[in-house]
Amino acid sequence: MPRYAFRIEYHGGPFRGWQMQEGQPSVQGALETAIARIEPAAPRTVAAGRTDTGVHATGQVAHVDLTRAWEPSRLMDALNHHLRPDPVSISACAVVPADFHARFSAVERRYMFRLVVRRAPVVHDAGLVWQVRHPLDAAAMRAAAAHLVGRHDFTTFRASLCQAKSPIKTLDEITVEEHPYPAGTEVRFHLRARSFLHNQVRSIVGTLERVGAGAWHPDRVAKALAARDRAACGPVSPPQGLYLTAVSYPEDPFAGA
Amino acid sequence: MPRYAFRIEYHGGPFRGWQMQEGQPSVQGALETAIARIEPAAPRTVAAGRTDTGVHATGQVAHVDLTRAWEPSRLMDALNHHLRPDPVSISACAVVPADFHARFSAVERRYMFRLVVRRAPVVHDAGLVWQVRHPLDAAAMRAAAAHLVGRHDFTTFRASLCQAKSPIKTLDEITVEEHPYPAGTEVRFHLRARSFLHNQVRSIVGTLERVGAGAWHPDRVAKALAARDRAACGPVSPPQGLYLTAVSYPEDPFAGA
Repeated sequence: MPRYAFRIEYHGGPFRGWQMQEGQPSVQGALETAIARIEPAAPRTVAAGRTDTGVHATGQVAHVDLTRAWEPSRLMDALNHHLRPDPVSISACAVVPADFHARFSAVERRYMFRLVVRRAPVVHDAGLVWQVRHPLDAAAMRAAAAHLVGRHDFTTFRASLCQAKSPIKTLDEITVEEHPYPAGTEVRFHLRARSFLHNQVRSIVGTLERVGAGAWHPDRVAKALAARDRAACGPVSPPQGLYLTAVSYPEDPFAGA
Repeated sequence: MPRYAFRIEYHGGPFRGWQMQEGQPSVQGALETAIARIEPAAPRTVAAGRTDTGVHATGQVAHVDLTRAWEPSRLMDALNHHLRPDPVSISACAVVPADFHARFSAVERRYMFRLVVRRAPVVHDAGLVWQVRHPLDAAAMRAAAAHLVGRHDFTTFRASLCQAKSPIKTLDEITVEEHPYPAGTEVRFHLRARSFLHNQVRSIVGTLERVGAGAWHPDRVAKALAARDRAACGPVSPPQGLYLTAVSYPEDPFAGA
């Protein structure tokens, strides 16, 4: 019973998040429906991160046990064929050891958040970015973000329904990049940690946006963190700018793929 | 009766091209429907380039004469409001002199073509790029493209239904860039000329793709050009990778916008 790992891309728009829910479209449901076309009795898939409704991925990782010994690139092609027309695509596939676990073996997750600043509505990136019309001060957002890097109690930046046992996490990196964008500017946030709390990235980005807009002084973010109080958080950003871009393991399961 | 110029973005997917056609969705039709909401008797719009079915724009330019003296940014906001939910957006608006003509005053057009090389189907860029699964040799495509730069008879690279009086055009630039792309590579072609023949960019890109794939030697492109024969052209690329990115005028109409 070989175990396979997949690197998965998806457009979060049509799905109620990664996790299968009865009567709701989910990325997991789309993937498992495709798997069932080639192995009807396959067990459930397990993913590194259970992304929320509307959140995208370019580097989600999941694993599943199948009975057949598939050549990985043929398995990838077969599943991509059956995934159509859902906006879900397997971009890498590998056989992994039986003790590989997409969620518990992961040692790092990376997220990117795309925020576009411009007056005219975006067209080609509709549903793929968060758009605001007011200018943002990237230097102020960087100063505020610096308060969050390191090991902290992130209760302020955690959804009230978060099921993690502890609110203490180590945020290894937040970068704030500015990129050219037609008739505007794109701000990209990159966040890296071993693991994240529920809504942590969107809570942080939504708060940093308030700093960039001038509504919050950067130091207020340090005070909000220290408060360990959900009420001290800024608004949670919308989901459509968020991408799970990479999950890392002690050994890269796709190194040979 | 002030004349207004617009810089326009659109997703070509839902439209049968720029030009209004009875009973068919067109970008011009969407724009004129929005204009009619604020000035019901407005005359027709005129665009710099009549893009084909499925072709995108980030820098199309059009003009129209309106009776009211609009503050340009308010006019832009009002039209963008009425354009919803069509994927058409006005990203700049300016009052221009009465002798400004979006098509005849233009001195340069720029197109970009996005081609993604990878095995797994694209997700977020579906409908926004041409995808191929085989590797492409960018150096060979550059060598082939060099044969096309300059003043030539482009009969080979012109649609049979092209209405231009002369097939002689001066292609000022073709660049072939490689960019990182998740689980693949993106090749971007940038083409610049005073004006283009019908299907010229897609005929050139489709031919260069054959060179990149190794099916054509770069010198065959020189021979195809010299043949001045439509039958000597490679396959025409699909439209969804093509973007009209900029139109230039002796004076930038949006310089103050």
